[in-house]
Amino acid sequence: MTYCVGIKLNAGLVFLSDSRTNAGVDHISTFRKMIVYEQPGDRFMVLLSAGNLSISQSVREILQIEELQEPNGGPPITIWNAKSMFDAARVLGSAVRHVYDRDAEALKHAGLDFNVSFVFGGQVKGEGMRLFLVYSAGNFIEATNETPYFQVGESKYGKPVLDRVLTPETPLDEAAKCALVSMDSTMKSNLSVGLPLDLVVYEANKLQTDRVICIDAENPYYRMMHNSWGQKLREVFDSIEDPVWDDSVSEHPLKMPAARHSALRKISTPEEKLI
Amino acid sequence: MTYCVGIKLNAGLVFLSDSRTNAGVDHISTFRKMIVYEQPGDRFMVLLSAGNLSISQSVREILQIEELQEPNGGPPITIWNAKSMFDAARVLGSAVRHVYDRDAEALKHAGLDFNVSFVFGGQVKGEGMRLFLVYSAGNFIEATNETPYFQVGESKYGKPVLDRVLTPETPLDEAAKCALVSMDSTMKSNLSVGLPLDLVVYEANKLQTDRVICIDAENPYYRMMHNSWGQKLREVFDSIEDPVWDDSVSEHPLKMPAARHSALRKISTPEEKLI
Repeated sequence: MTYCVGIKLNAGLVFLSDSRTNAGVDHISTFRKMIVYEQPGDRFMVLLSAGNLSISQSVREILQIEELQEPNGGPPITIWNAKSMFDAARVLGSAVRHVYDRDAEALKHAGLDFNVSFVFGGQVKGEGMRLFLVYSAGNFIEATNETPYFQVGESKYGKPVLDRVLTPETPLDEAAKCALVSMDSTMKSNLSVGLPLDLVVYEANKLQTDRVICIDAENPYYRMMHNSWGQKLREVFDSIEDPVWDDSVSEHPLKMPAARHSALRKISTPEEKLI
Repeated sequence: MTYCVGIKLNAGLVFLSDSRTNAGVDHISTFRKMIVYEQPGDRFMVLLSAGNLSISQSVREILQIEELQEPNGGPPITIWNAKSMFDAARVLGSAVRHVYDRDAEALKHAGLDFNVSFVFGGQVKGEGMRLFLVYSAGNFIEATNETPYFQVGESKYGKPVLDRVLTPETPLDEAAKCALVSMDSTMKSNLSVGLPLDLVVYEANKLQTDRVICIDAENPYYRMMHNSWGQKLREVFDSIEDPVWDDSVSEHPLKMPAARHSALRKISTPEEKLI
């Protein structure tokens, strides 16, 4: 399994991926799921991948040489000359379709779906930052102000904190912290998501970044965050009062009236049957 | 969709279910997913269901009259005369199999899986409390001290808080609070899980309970918990320092050294290709 998240903010972009890959539970390996494409001053792009590893690796390989021929002629579009992130995402979609053409039928014979998805974001000189979610059919959607992040892989455990925190106005480092908390919750509940993590933080309009880091169990910030989050979450949980049951209905906000006459179907004797 | 959780503690049992059912996103209805079977002083059982509603309703209907004939003769076992929760779970499994025999083939023709699962727990006089997860094949597993809860339905969003809080020693009302927080996180991230909730808290060896409540958006405890949790979670998040980037590697626990030489594959020019 995999967990990757990409976030688009007014201040920049944040990308985070884990590195655990498993085929069943007895074949667990470490594969990096992030690649950074950078031509300083001209373009900066990050690709995160989830799904069948043979497919995503093939797509990444092909993407380097993929050329999209436009019907109206002109030089073919590649990720290195695309004039927009939209066109670069089209090149990625085309690479996905080439791998589909090559592998999908044989995978189907083996009982496997053509299962792959990507988060692809960045900035090309001359336009704003953009963030895409690219599906296994090579089609894609783009993040907006209302939905400023995309996840691929094991996305559910880590989604609540993203929903609670992220807006386009969130500062970059706060969003990086949020992504790490989201990853931490995911790793706590799913063994198939694991360290080390790859984190990239990109500041708007820089067209390059030095903020690329591999985070392992020894990383002091990650350890501090992991311990603090678990401990403080527990403190918050403890600070909320337990429900109090009371047979007399009360307006006190902590009272939960015991509902003998709840609308719930409560079958009290064998005779009181449903039928 | 559905989210239900059952928890077994030394002090008793907690059951919580939502009530939203959907067929697609344009057909959303309210169906209660909890039934309490109670013969005060003799037995107390709660059934939570998830999956295809036509299957789970049929199972619940049949369960009232289901009889399990033992090979060695004797009177047939029902949920009302079973001498153990294990036997009662076998009766439930048998009811599931009867519905399978009746409906599975026609469902398959319609392209539908026989998709249903149950959390079933309680206490029969003469033995301790027990909690089971019953699958669509009618087989089941039992909760233990190491795994004191079972979920069915949309379980992932609400799992991290259960993993962080629950142990067999957790007090009953604290576990009820934990289940409600887990439900709250689930409802925040998945529109197909919704109010009202059904909550049952059972105290060990009572063989009956009055703590049965239907919780809607007006419930003062739920509103307090919902607001406090969201707000305090945000405060905890804010209280953890953001990562600080620094080109000089530092031992300060908040410093994240910018890793120009990260092991991450960073492709800086078109020439530096993967291939």
